[in-house]
Order: sequence, then C-alpha cells, then structure tokens
Amino acid sequence: MNIPDLIQKKRDGGEHTRAEIEQLVGGFTRGQVPDYQVSAWLMAVYLRGMTPRETADLTLVMAESGDMMDLSTLKNTVDKHSTGGVGDKTSLILAPMLAALGLTVAKMSGRGLAHTGGTIDKLESIPGWSPELADEPFLQQAREVGMALVGQSKDLAPADGLLYALRDVTATVDCVPLIASSIMSKKLASGAHTVILDVKVGAGAFMKTLDDARTLARAMVDIGKHAGRNVRALLTDMETPLGHMAGNSLEVQEALATLRGEGPADLVELCVLLAQEALMAHGVAEGEARERALGVLRDGSALAKFRAFVAAQGGDPTYVDQPEQLDVAPGRADITAHQDGFVTRVDALSVGKAVLVLGGGRELKGERIDPGVGVELVRKPGEAVQAGDVIARIYHRDGRGLERATELLNAGLILGAQQPDVPPIILDRVN
Amino acid sequence: MNIPDLIQKKRDGGEHTRAEIEQLVGGFTRGQVPDYQVSAWLMAVYLRGMTPRETADLTLVMAESGDMMDLSTLKNTVDKHSTGGVGDKTSLILAPMLAALGLTVAKMSGRGLAHTGGTIDKLESIPGWSPELADEPFLQQAREVGMALVGQSKDLAPADGLLYALRDVTATVDCVPLIASSIMSKKLASGAHTVILDVKVGAGAFMKTLDDARTLARAMVDIGKHAGRNVRALLTDMETPLGHMAGNSLEVQEALATLRGEGPADLVELCVLLAQEALMAHGVAEGEARERALGVLRDGSALAKFRAFVAAQGGDPTYVDQPEQLDVAPGRADITAHQDGFVTRVDALSVGKAVLVLGGGRELKGERIDPGVGVELVRKPGEAVQAGDVIARIYHRDGRGLERATELLNAGLILGAQQPDVPPIILDRVN
Repeated sequence: MNIPDLIQKKRDGGEHTRAEIEQLVGGFTRGQVPDYQVSAWLMAVYLRGMTPRETADLTLVMAESGDMMDLSTLKNTVDKHSTGGVGDKTSLILAPMLAALGLTVAKMSGRGLAHTGGTIDKLESIPGWSPELADEPFLQQAREVGMALVGQSKDLAPADGLLYALRDVTATVDCVPLIASSIMSKKLASGAHTVILDVKVGAGAFMKTLDDARTLARAMVDIGKHAGRNVRALLTDMETPLGHMAGNSLEVQEALATLRGEGPADLVELCVLLAQEALMAHGVAEGEARERALGVLRDGSALAKFRAFVAAQGGDPTYVDQPEQLDVAPGRADITAHQDGFVTRVDALSVGKAVLVLGGGRELKGERIDPGVGVELVRKPGEAVQAGDVIARIYHRDGRGLERATELLNAGLILGAQQPDVPPIILDRVN
Repeated sequence: MNIPDLIQKKRDGGEHTRAEIEQLVGGFTRGQVPDYQVSAWLMAVYLRGMTPRETADLTLVMAESGDMMDLSTLKNTVDKHSTGGVGDKTSLILAPMLAALGLTVAKMSGRGLAHTGGTIDKLESIPGWSPELADEPFLQQAREVGMALVGQSKDLAPADGLLYALRDVTATVDCVPLIASSIMSKKLASGAHTVILDVKVGAGAFMKTLDDARTLARAMVDIGKHAGRNVRALLTDMETPLGHMAGNSLEVQEALATLRGEGPADLVELCVLLAQEALMAHGVAEGEARERALGVLRDGSALAKFRAFVAAQGGDPTYVDQPEQLDVAPGRADITAHQDGFVTRVDALSVGKAVLVLGGGRELKGERIDPGVGVELVRKPGEAVQAGDVIARIYHRDGRGLERATELLNAGLILGAQQPDVPPIILDRVN
C-alpha cells in the first residue's frame, strides 16, 4: 500500500499490520515519509484509536528505530518508570532496594528537563559520582553490584522524539495509544525484562483522573504483554510532592534517610510497594514480597548497595554515611501559617516551579543546575498548624529567585479550617 | 488562539469562526502555517465534519485568497458548473441559450486536463476564435453579446489548489465540506451571482450514489445561501456520455446542431433544464421558464447569440453555419454489434479514454490536442441492434491510437439480450 492508502485505512477505522506501521513510522524516522502525511495519520489515530496489538506494534517499531540496549547477560533486570512528579526521589531508593533483593537495575537515564533535576542530576550532587560508563564496565557493575546508572549515550527510540515533536504542534498529544507507545518504546529499547510503572494521577500529573490513568496503565501493560516483557503498573496519587524535600541535594539526603529506615511514611510506602511489585513480577507471593521489601530497608542492605553503587561510579562514599556534608545552600527563608487550622493542599506544581526559580532545575538543555537549593515541606496535607508555625522552608543561594519562590509557595500551600481527607498513596494496580 | 489550539477545537468537534478559518487556511496560503499542521486539521475536518456556516466561511476564505472577478457592472450573471463528464458539450449550448434569454454569461475557463478537451479547447476548433481578452473588452462583450468566455488569466482561489494538493496525499479528498468548498471557492471568485450546478451521479462520476450527490449538492447550495449568491443544483445521470459525439470538433458540430433545434434528446433535455433553472433563479415560474428555454432553440435566437459570440472573439462565423467545414480527422473505423440484442451500457470512461488515446485530450498541462479526432456513439443504451450494425464510429488521424481506442470501445460498449431501463437525465433537484 502507498502512504495515502495507509492513512485512509486508519481514517476509516481499520487496523494496521506491523508492516504498515513500519512503513509509516519507520519511513518517517528515516526521512522517507513527509511530516504532513504523518500528522494526518496521527489525527486519524487520535480520533479512531488503535487496538492493543496495533499499539504494541507501533511501540516495537519506535523502539527498533534506534539503538536497543542488550541486557540479556544480566539476570532479573528491572526498570522503573514514573510518568513524572515533583520531589520524586523514588528511583534513588528503589534501585538499591531492588539490588539488595537480588534483582538488577541497569539503566540509562536522561538529565531532567523539568522543575527539578532528573535522577542523574540528583546523583551528581554526590562529589565524584559520574554518569559516564562504557558498555562493558556498565554491564560488569550491574552484574556485580546489581545496580548501574549511566547518562544517555545511545540513541534510544529516536522515532519517539520525532513523533512527539509533530504531535506537540498538531493537537495529537493526549491520546492513550500514542502516550503509551511513547513511554514504552524507550522502556523496550532500554532492555529490562521487567518494567514497573508508577502512573501518577491528579491535578499535577498528565493524567487528571483515575479512569484516564487506569486506561493508560492498561495500554502500557498490554504493550508489555505483546512484546514479551513483564510490565506492572501502580496508580499513585500526585496531588502532593512525595516526602518532604524538593531539590537535588535535599532529595539525596531524604533518600539516604529512607535507606537508613528513617524515611517519611508516604515515600517509604511507595518504594516498598514498587519493590513488592517487582518481586511479585518474579513470582514472589504478595505477603512475602512486602516483608522482603521492608526488610532491606530495616537491615541496611539497601543502603549498603547504594554505597557500593556510588563507589563503583567514582563517588565518595563518605557522603552516603554523612549526608549532612552534601552541598546545601546556606540561605533560609520560612513560609509560616497565617492562621490556625490544617494544611489542606500542597500544590506539587507550585513547589516544582519554586525549586526551578531558585536554580534547582533547568528549562533549557545543557543549563547548569544548583544542587544545593530547594524547598522543605515541613508540614504536609492533613497536619494541624497554628498561626506562625513554619509550614515550608526555602533553601536559597544568595537570595536568587527567593521572592518568586515565596510567592509560588504562598499560593500553592493552602490552609483551611477543616482537616482534609488525605488520599492513600496507591490508588490502583494494573497488571 | 494558536494553530494547535485551532486544530484541537476541530479535533474535539468544535465549530470554527470565520477568523479562525482565515488564520488556518489564509495563513497556509500565505506560507505562514506549515503543511503538517494543515493536514492534521484536514483529517480532523474529515472525521468531525463542518457545519454549513463553517463550510461557507471556509469557501469565502478560499475564494478571497486570490483574485476576485468583479462582474458587478453586468446584469443577471449566470455561471454553470458541472462536476465533470465525458462528451459534455453542455456549456457550448447553454451559454448562448442563457444569453438569448437575457441573462449574462461572463466566464473564465481553464483548459481541459482530462479525457476530452475543456470548453476553451472545443471552441478553439473554430478557426480564428481566441480565448484571450483583456478585462475591459471582456466586460464590454458580455454586456453587448451577453456571452464572453476567456482563458484563465487570473489567480482564482489559489488556496484551493494548495489545499487540494495536500488532501490528495493525506486521504482527505472525499469529504463533502472540502469538496463543496473547493468547487464553490472558484465559483465565488468567478463573480457570477447565479450558479447552476450540474452534479453528475454514477459509476463514471465522482459521486457514485444519488444520496452522496444530494449531500454534496445541498452543501454547495448552502454555501451559496451563506455567501449571498443564488445557487441551484441538478443531479444528473452520468452512466452514459451525453449526446452522440465525443471529441472537440465533433462536439462543436453536435452543439451547433442542438442550437439549430436538431440536437439529441438527452442533450437537449439537459440544456433546457439547466436554462430553466437559471430562469427560475431569476423569478420566472417553472412552466414559463421551460417554454422560454425551448423557444430560444426553436427560434434560432440562441444560435444567433453563438454566432455573435464567435465573431466577437475573432472566430470565423462561417463555421457556425457550415459546421461540416470544421476540421474532422479523415480516418474512420467502425465498432459493430457482434450479436442481435440491445445496447445495455455505454461506459463513459471508456469513451473518454478512447478520445484521449486518439489524441483528442491531454494528460499533461500544455500538450497540444487534435481537435479532429473522436468517437461517435451511433447507438445509445436502450436501442435495439442486429449483429453487424455499426454501434460506434472512430474518427482517427492516420491510425494514431486506433488499436487501443478500438479495444477500449469494445470493452465499454455492452450489448445484451434484454432491453435495459434507461434512467432519466435528471435524478433530482436541490435549491
């Protein structure tokens, strides 16, 4: 079939074969199919949908458009993906937990282009730690330590970037098969056999309702099934940032506290549940999986894995045991309660934007970020406060961005007279 | 709104304002909006549709994208448009009929890019006749003779050509609001106040079913209403070529015979009905309109108008009275009946292709055509034949294309044992 015939097939509600999707999307990636045909097809996909089999084939075509990581020499590889959150230091905690549980996390990670830094940016707040590792040492470290994290050196799923750029300007972004294939194409190219998805739901997340999030999670899990991978999803609340800290060094400190067994309840619970899913994907029963996940935090084995991981990639392990020595900006400014009552809402987006204006995130690729700045959420939703109590603390460097950050937090931290219902961290589970 | 917001509005089934359509389609025509955004929007239009008001606004935006003919100094201007047919010499007959009825036909016409030539090509088989006229003489002739026909010298509705090129490669051609606005944008730019549409229906036409044709006709008539023009449509049968002749000189000869009151029944009937619609659009009652339309064929006044028109544009009026002197190719070859029975079908497309291979049409812009070649359909559907009777005659020049034309006609002229039902020329009327 020629390209207009393929567009017509989707326009009329037909189901594409794998070869047809390769002709369209593979051809587009190779520069053989012009963008104006692909955008018409994307709109047809948006309005006509795709079957689970088609979505899986689209994902595979996208995954295979670039380099494919070969992790076949590693055992029990696990990858975790979050659809994006503020103050989400989960990966820093979950990866050593999984390593301590006998699973392998060997992961390529991009730098953050968001309110706060990405995982690589956070780890770089540990002096000496480097995201650069050649293929062989990377695999060897993963085998020996159970955990290796490198920067993006390969071209994973370039079709995804090209398609996304076109979707962004043609009103075809918020379409489940296209979102699911975009996320999963990078996961398939990344090579792990098991993928645990943390699908965020709420005002601050891409998926605003539980129903939408469930549909997206189902689509991604189905892609995994078709592609012969083991994919499980947790639907988690994203109204409020996880834990108390937002900002790079501050989040590493909080992650280390969690690995020592001293983490905030919501963060501990999410990490335990994600680790539990990973074990269940490897055949461990639910109750036992939970016990073992809690155990590696309790007995220090996850912390030991993190220490070994930092050292293996050139970092100074002193900081793992003395995290107070990490660079935290000296400036402090407090947001205080203007009335007695309860914290009813902490808007994650406002907190994220505050960290960004303080210098802790980047808006453009390549911008340097300041690891030391950030925001501490001293009180979280549901807690009682009295007028004058500190509810958040800003860590700033010489006042940079302080005024705007204060405005953002004053607008984003909502107090009220009535104690609010705080939703559970986990809203649903799809596998 | 920015362009993605406009695409999203149509994607979600919204109704565009005139300003929004101007931003999209006007912007595209001016090179400000890229094709990949317009093609996504076209697919959204295809799948979500457009209201009559939106379709009219789209048509006006397209019409105003280029030159607009100003016929405001002429009275009772009428244009006729046919959605395409084989052996359709209607314009040659209808225009002088309308002029004789006191209406004005002042029309810019493209050359044919089809099986047979266009109206301009057909008129050029009359020695001396020229399609070139400056604006002032063109309007003056229309005022004095009631009829002037020139070649395409202005840039009418360039948005239509640009949009069509994009629709052609993005599976967005067969969409009623887009077809209707494409046709009507050129009609609105052409300036006539009354437009009579001849919407062809059948295997050989763009609209295959009466329902589809009716929907298209309704859309075009509605555009006229919104644009303050008087638009009426006839839905006519296009299974079989009109009259007996296909080919340029041959069609002029048949048109002249019709103007003398000696035309074939189907052709006469269609021309009378189209003229009748034009009169009814000017307030004449149906019965009287029919009488007057028949009258100008009977009393020679339409023929006189044609003679004056040919002379005014430099043609030798001798040929109008002695059409047998027009250049007709000397070669003859007959297609004969291979059995006793009835002509059951004359496939219009096969006849058109035969004329093309004989040299009477063009496939590429600028190709010269041979006015003298063509096909005479000696017998039409419903007529009884005996084995050996001539059913069609080929007029060829030195055997060029003869073999292929014979094959095409043998395949396209179908005989059968039973007398077929011959549909009426007019299937429906929309206004």
